[in-house]
Amino acid sequence: MNPPQHVGPQHMSGEEFRRHGHAVIDWIADYIDDVEQYPVESQVAPGDIRALMPTSPPEAPEAFEDILADVDRIVMPGITHWQSPNWFAFFPASSSAPAILGDLVSSGLGVQGMMWSTSPACTEVESVVMDWLVELLGLPEGWRTTDQGGGVLQMSASDSTHTALVVARHLANEAGHTDETLVAYTSGQAHSSIEKGARVSGYGHVRKIDVDDEFALIPAALEATIAADREAGLHPTFVNSSVGTTATTAIDPVKTVGEIARREGLWHHVDAAFAGSAMICPEFRHHQDGLELVDSYVFNPHKWLLTNFDCSAFFVADRKSLLETLSILPAYLRNEATESGAVIDYRDWHVPLGRRFRALKLWFVLRSYGAEGLRAHIRSHVEMAKGFEQKVIDDPRFELYSPTFFSLVCFRHVAGNDVTDTLAEAINATGKVSITRSEIDGDSFIRVAVGSTYTTQEHVDGLWELFDELAPVPAG
Amino acid sequence: MNPPQHVGPQHMSGEEFRRHGHAVIDWIADYIDDVEQYPVESQVAPGDIRALMPTSPPEAPEAFEDILADVDRIVMPGITHWQSPNWFAFFPASSSAPAILGDLVSSGLGVQGMMWSTSPACTEVESVVMDWLVELLGLPEGWRTTDQGGGVLQMSASDSTHTALVVARHLANEAGHTDETLVAYTSGQAHSSIEKGARVSGYGHVRKIDVDDEFALIPAALEATIAADREAGLHPTFVNSSVGTTATTAIDPVKTVGEIARREGLWHHVDAAFAGSAMICPEFRHHQDGLELVDSYVFNPHKWLLTNFDCSAFFVADRKSLLETLSILPAYLRNEATESGAVIDYRDWHVPLGRRFRALKLWFVLRSYGAEGLRAHIRSHVEMAKGFEQKVIDDPRFELYSPTFFSLVCFRHVAGNDVTDTLAEAINATGKVSITRSEIDGDSFIRVAVGSTYTTQEHVDGLWELFDELAPVPAG
Repeated sequence: MNPPQHVGPQHMSGEEFRRHGHAVIDWIADYIDDVEQYPVESQVAPGDIRALMPTSPPEAPEAFEDILADVDRIVMPGITHWQSPNWFAFFPASSSAPAILGDLVSSGLGVQGMMWSTSPACTEVESVVMDWLVELLGLPEGWRTTDQGGGVLQMSASDSTHTALVVARHLANEAGHTDETLVAYTSGQAHSSIEKGARVSGYGHVRKIDVDDEFALIPAALEATIAADREAGLHPTFVNSSVGTTATTAIDPVKTVGEIARREGLWHHVDAAFAGSAMICPEFRHHQDGLELVDSYVFNPHKWLLTNFDCSAFFVADRKSLLETLSILPAYLRNEATESGAVIDYRDWHVPLGRRFRALKLWFVLRSYGAEGLRAHIRSHVEMAKGFEQKVIDDPRFELYSPTFFSLVCFRHVAGNDVTDTLAEAINATGKVSITRSEIDGDSFIRVAVGSTYTTQEHVDGLWELFDELAPVPAG
Repeated sequence: MNPPQHVGPQHMSGEEFRRHGHAVIDWIADYIDDVEQYPVESQVAPGDIRALMPTSPPEAPEAFEDILADVDRIVMPGITHWQSPNWFAFFPASSSAPAILGDLVSSGLGVQGMMWSTSPACTEVESVVMDWLVELLGLPEGWRTTDQGGGVLQMSASDSTHTALVVARHLANEAGHTDETLVAYTSGQAHSSIEKGARVSGYGHVRKIDVDDEFALIPAALEATIAADREAGLHPTFVNSSVGTTATTAIDPVKTVGEIARREGLWHHVDAAFAGSAMICPEFRHHQDGLELVDSYVFNPHKWLLTNFDCSAFFVADRKSLLETLSILPAYLRNEATESGAVIDYRDWHVPLGRRFRALKLWFVLRSYGAEGLRAHIRSHVEMAKGFEQKVIDDPRFELYSPTFFSLVCFRHVAGNDVTDTLAEAINATGKVSITRSEIDGDSFIRVAVGSTYTTQEHVDGLWELFDELAPVPAG
């Protein structure tokens, strides 16, 4: 046979990979060391980054040094620094060194964990780590993969919530209810992913239930709405309890909602995307009393548990309905292990088939920090937030907007919306920090989320100094 | 104020991160160098990996060295080596050194690209790179983000196909058709994600259309089925064309299906998950003639374009319906850039809200290899597959099962199913390679997918030698 005409491309040699890899590691170490020196929010205008890039892809290979240099030249001006210790916006995207390195090992192994058989460690490490989370967070024992429930890593809470909505819809369809009649309930303060997930999965109706003055769902309003919907011939199907809403970390009454869900035959999902990480400290667990009345639960270690995106932990109390809804087994995926029933095939636990070895980074984090390190992490943030909250309370220019249950402080200027909005803009315009302006029912307020990995008391003090400096004293 | 009581956990210092990071890079370099020495498929039994892990998470922090050592001790026995040059199973999960390093930079930056404003570079680099793909793959000009279409990175083809199904369903719902009446069409040879996505998104019906003797969808059968469904009062909504099916890389007639779809008012989606990467070589593009009649398209650079999972490229010809279906804008996500309409907010292009900077690794790959390197990569694999196919054809023990359009060779032993199955098992049991056994309509066959990054002619020759050695000569 003739020798191949096409010899394939030039791959980076092992030696080159080591050299460039060390350079990237050093680049990241420098970045983490220096991140405070950048303006927290990117200062570019729409199109600025695109303008720095060629309109056509390169025909010939380029040197790795040039590409890495372009990260500095092209990418960095367009980065808003979520890893800055002065990041107080949205919720944090808390990463950590062990997470980055665990994820790197996953990239290096490059396995597809769609089934147990396609890399058994990818499935078993994930199952064990999810079972560890059950213990660490004080979740119901039955949620272990060794029991009738189980946990799986998904990309985002939106994906997990969507999955729960699909399972509930499937059960309702099986019982003869058509999509247009299905109703999903959630508080008006829940994350947009509930409404989006319900739309995406075809629910006919989404009801946003009234909240009390702490922005928690009012159970009586839920019951009344369910009754009215039944009266109208609709089929109440799904209810979400938020443990820590996005706007203010408000906490719905999980137990009472659970009792209503059981009585009315609804699927009960809990979205604890941000606050779920706090449950590693027993003193916060009372906020989610009633988990025994929950069908599915999601929280994001990539928000507040030092594990970089994507890492969303989804649990079900009973995996039977989940698997029944999502299992499809074509010939090319058949294998002995699956047929034995002795293994988990995570492909049946979510929409995507392919999956990377995401559990590695979580395993690295749980072991690197240990339970005691993770508790110290959560407690230090909550304490810093509480200290900040106290300054807000003590300052006559401000009023607290909602209770600080975890590490998010919500407040406003007593002079009202315009001054609050202007203040928020002025704070961000300093480039020294990033906070989020939000509003509920026409009331503007400021969100300060303490949660970035490297945030210390000094950074929180610095933030307060900015507020102190820039907030006007109200007239009169 | 009192000093904080909780000082937070001990984080890895910059110095430690450098040291451990270099160690992980070296570990990966060694792994890639040594991967041929492992049995390709993991040899563990269900529960073996779990048994090596403690049932409870550690209370105290553990040393990074111990964790990395446990990757060798606990994880590696449970790894099936997708990155082995002797990997010929399923489709490849082709990674590369630049991809691993690009993904590492993304982990280090730790930004959330849900909106343009939350890190402009994350959105603009992605848009530019997706526009580059339009040029590289010869896709319709209108699919650029600067035109009325656009591309976005999703996690998997399953997610992308699901997204397309949801948009099509939304349009049908808007036109007054209920979910139970919606019908999705695809060939009986399409990937399971079409059926799964249709189920997940609530379609009442999925029709698997008959295929011809090359396993391509038969247009007349599609038309007849659509007509029968209309007759029955159903609403034909969505049709998928596969360019490269999973079992045999069969190719549906995209243009003819597109004409039917236009005439009948169906959303036309193309699943080119594996074969789409080949379109970087102009000589393969005739296989997808008719893209001007396509509404959405997906292919996975993480399959055959040297970019590690997850990296699924999803394109729409017109982004209007996509955005209309998936946009939800709560107060805490409002911002000037979004309201100006001058930017892309990728959160509205898929189910998840959060997103990591996935475009970096694709940018690194496209620049490191250049278009010419990527074409050499594809052509060398196709050539190796063609060489292997010729040996199959020339050997009286075997018969080709389907045409080799790209780099997947499908064949069977002439003695029938049992011998074919036994042979497949025997090949994998050597531990030297991994191939996939599959079946269509009761016919067993063997799939040899040439596509792993480091596969050379030597590895393909070695695979053939195994077949030559282990395949029995048929009696008589």
